[in-house]
Amino acid sequence: MRAAILRDKRIEVGDVPVPEPGPGEILVKTLACGICGSDLHVFHRARHDEDGGGSIVMGHEFVAEIADYGPETTRRLKPGTRVTSIPILGRKTGAEFIGYSGINPGGYGEYMRLTEDHLLEIPNGLPTDHAALNEPMSVGWHAVNKARLDPGDVPLVIGCGPIGLAVIAGLKIKGVHPIVAASKSAARRDLALAVGADVVVDPREQSPYDSWRAMAQTGIPNPGPTLPGWLVGSGLKPAVIFECVGGPGILQELISGAPQDARIVVVGLCFEEDRFQPMTGMRKELQIIFSNSFHRHEFAETLHHLAEGMIDADPLVTGKVGLGGVADAFTALESPNKHAKILIEPWRG
Amino acid sequence: MRAAILRDKRIEVGDVPVPEPGPGEILVKTLACGICGSDLHVFHRARHDEDGGGSIVMGHEFVAEIADYGPETTRRLKPGTRVTSIPILGRKTGAEFIGYSGINPGGYGEYMRLTEDHLLEIPNGLPTDHAALNEPMSVGWHAVNKARLDPGDVPLVIGCGPIGLAVIAGLKIKGVHPIVAASKSAARRDLALAVGADVVVDPREQSPYDSWRAMAQTGIPNPGPTLPGWLVGSGLKPAVIFECVGGPGILQELISGAPQDARIVVVGLCFEEDRFQPMTGMRKELQIIFSNSFHRHEFAETLHHLAEGMIDADPLVTGKVGLGGVADAFTALESPNKHAKILIEPWRG
Repeated sequence: MRAAILRDKRIEVGDVPVPEPGPGEILVKTLACGICGSDLHVFHRARHDEDGGGSIVMGHEFVAEIADYGPETTRRLKPGTRVTSIPILGRKTGAEFIGYSGINPGGYGEYMRLTEDHLLEIPNGLPTDHAALNEPMSVGWHAVNKARLDPGDVPLVIGCGPIGLAVIAGLKIKGVHPIVAASKSAARRDLALAVGADVVVDPREQSPYDSWRAMAQTGIPNPGPTLPGWLVGSGLKPAVIFECVGGPGILQELISGAPQDARIVVVGLCFEEDRFQPMTGMRKELQIIFSNSFHRHEFAETLHHLAEGMIDADPLVTGKVGLGGVADAFTALESPNKHAKILIEPWRG
Repeated sequence: MRAAILRDKRIEVGDVPVPEPGPGEILVKTLACGICGSDLHVFHRARHDEDGGGSIVMGHEFVAEIADYGPETTRRLKPGTRVTSIPILGRKTGAEFIGYSGINPGGYGEYMRLTEDHLLEIPNGLPTDHAALNEPMSVGWHAVNKARLDPGDVPLVIGCGPIGLAVIAGLKIKGVHPIVAASKSAARRDLALAVGADVVVDPREQSPYDSWRAMAQTGIPNPGPTLPGWLVGSGLKPAVIFECVGGPGILQELISGAPQDARIVVVGLCFEEDRFQPMTGMRKELQIIFSNSFHRHEFAETLHHLAEGMIDADPLVTGKVGLGGVADAFTALESPNKHAKILIEPWRG
């Protein structure tokens, strides 16, 4: 089959074997697959590896249609049914990721194998393009759930890439307002407003924390200088700050900017060792909540959100390419940009 | 007045002026004052400062008796009444710490000035020695409150110095069992058992996390290898780990050892920049909760706990010295040791 393959430190179109579905697995034909920030990271790492990182068909944000059945399958869904799945094969020998190795090709190729038990049927009326956003939208929905929001909380989203936008969409569904969001990209600030942000700020022009503070006034006068904030409270509504940028140093930026008692939900990925000032976290009594991926039920809930129009998905797909356009799409996504999500349609060749 | 003074990079007995109580302030005579780990840190820093750190009368864990009244006081408590207070002066010009500067001498001296509004009367029948533990016990009580414990949680306390012991005492009051505690000191493990730990472990002989795991079984069989832990849960009871050691590198040790979904309550102080591996926290979906000091109401609650015998305070006072014994007490506390709390009784000279 044709695929956009990461090998020899670059992405090129080539042929790889069609994967063979094992027991309980289904062969599917990829309809659309998003390019994820962690794909960019895998690419970046491969370019700096001695051995070039092997040969990988990436892609874990996919919509596909059923093509064939492996052994020990119930065949409950008919050929041609549009489906999505968590990007994991649930094998008796252990869980295996899809789209992160040379063994289980992801949605950058024409075909994939998926675990039948993980398949979710795409509801009628939900366009394939929108359904392809389900995986990143689930990451945002999970982060919002991890925050355990109270109605009085005032959220602040730092970074408006696909994950930041997914968090904003999740916050809108929760009905927690005002939502303050920060991005250096004007296009992404517009997208943030489109999916539910109430206030957007360019952090190069204004402090996101000052914007947050203006939205978080309780009307209760500050207790004055006679006691420190950690002893009597800040007189502000509770802050829930979502770190949706990733990379070393970002968490400390949030720790420095955060108000007293803030909860920081870390959704951005930092693969390197990181440094921070614990006494700043201590004095402010911050809580740092790491939010990874999503639970299975959240993946299904997000598909429902998309199908019911609870997420304005249309503006989030900012580009579509065939396999031949993947390398250029990666280049476009590497530098600060206007994109939210670029979809790959492998059938376009 | 006589005091144990930190100056010229050492602690020596000398004379300093009796502090003058300002508006709303009371002059008190110190009865007993604990030596705190942060006093050791101030001493350590002073020894490495170019200028020797100035001249400080430390001591913020005190019991005192009322000696005289400043202007604008209600005089609601009679002379000789035993009192304690949060170690902060609530002045109109701002909060000022007691025992951390040359301006507001703490309990290492014969006299202090306190804010009348902050005074708590020591209940009859509560020995001065036990009441002197109120400040560190409040730190533990606050940390336990910050953890927002559920009945099914299984706590693990790393470090059994005064703060670790205070956390264990607080957990016992909350009724959350079993309590697992780790310390390299045999004497401190015995103290941990005395104040409420159910299982103690020497981390040089056995992993505290393995001991915790043995206590945290739910009886629900592990879901097996077909899906990763972050997707389906660990099959263990929730872990709440209290970091009561302090210093760089300790948090990463806990992050490495912690089970999936653990909450880590950071009570130990790390004054330096620290390093950690965010992806480990991310994969395990850890929560890091910084717990600083206490709220005013918790300081009062702890005094109630001590007065009602809810904390077995007696074994926690492991030494008493006059002013002349402070320097040696600091030396004894600097290396790993058997002590919980050494009290200074300045009136002994």
